[in-house]
Amino acid sequence: MPYLEELAKEQTIKKQTGKNFAAIHCGPFDQLEQYELQHPLRKRPFKGKLFAKDHLGLTGMQISYTKLPAGASVPFTHKHKENEELYIVVSGRGQVLVDNDIIEVEEGSTIRVDVDGDRCLRASSDTDLIYICIQAKTNSLKQDTFDDGIPGESAPNWG
Amino acid sequence: MPYLEELAKEQTIKKQTGKNFAAIHCGPFDQLEQYELQHPLRKRPFKGKLFAKDHLGLTGMQISYTKLPAGASVPFTHKHKENEELYIVVSGRGQVLVDNDIIEVEEGSTIRVDVDGDRCLRASSDTDLIYICIQAKTNSLKQDTFDDGIPGESAPNWG
Repeated sequence: MPYLEELAKEQTIKKQTGKNFAAIHCGPFDQLEQYELQHPLRKRPFKGKLFAKDHLGLTGMQISYTKLPAGASVPFTHKHKENEELYIVVSGRGQVLVDNDIIEVEEGSTIRVDVDGDRCLRASSDTDLIYICIQAKTNSLKQDTFDDGIPGESAPNWG
Repeated sequence: MPYLEELAKEQTIKKQTGKNFAAIHCGPFDQLEQYELQHPLRKRPFKGKLFAKDHLGLTGMQISYTKLPAGASVPFTHKHKENEELYIVVSGRGQVLVDNDIIEVEEGSTIRVDVDGDRCLRASSDTDLIYICIQAKTNSLKQDTFDDGIPGESAPNWG
């Protein structure tokens, strides 16, 4: 069984499912340290990291939540084989390194990184950095929004 | 030219690009009303909605930011043809409707909705609801994270 799938089975997260959805409630972002990831290539667990694809049954993307403590850096850079990554900064300030470029980031900063970009993130010395990362396969999106959406025929029924 | 691409050319957002990345800075989420979307099927513009795929040059996903004022509902439901959607609640409280199920949501709530799920969102009467929505093609992700990532060979060079 793939490692992250196994980890998802061990983690306790409030979940609801229905015919066409799955929902999880991860709690406030500033309490992300309740989640831990033991990276297979690292000695110590990474506190404040949650991968949610297997909790949600996603088939088109992976999503992770990360809280980096003030002054901390992800300890390694990485590239990808076939997935585009999108980083969304939810709170705090910090920097994103892509190859030799440094991007100053804060709430609302949103960064696309291509497979060949050698990337890393760090929090500023005075604030935690909280971010979301989405992975999706490069060039996999064929249509979206108005081309892919089907409007409902009646008003929402909130009961 | 597709409508959203045209809109992205008109919108002014702070942007940085490099060989393997593009970054935008949308500003604090509680100021999302600075962005407007004129939905092609609606009479009035939707204030507080930003689609960012064309600003970022994404090829595997679409991302939108939405701020729904307290008490407001998206005025219609919708399904999708081929894209899975992922809703991430960033702040506030509200509800997500999928078919006949209502999911209570707050910061950290994350919901996968399949193509056939007839969906809608609304903010609670006393807080704005701010959320991110990602679209990716159903079943398009072939591998991710440890299978798709390539660790760097040296420590991050923050300069």
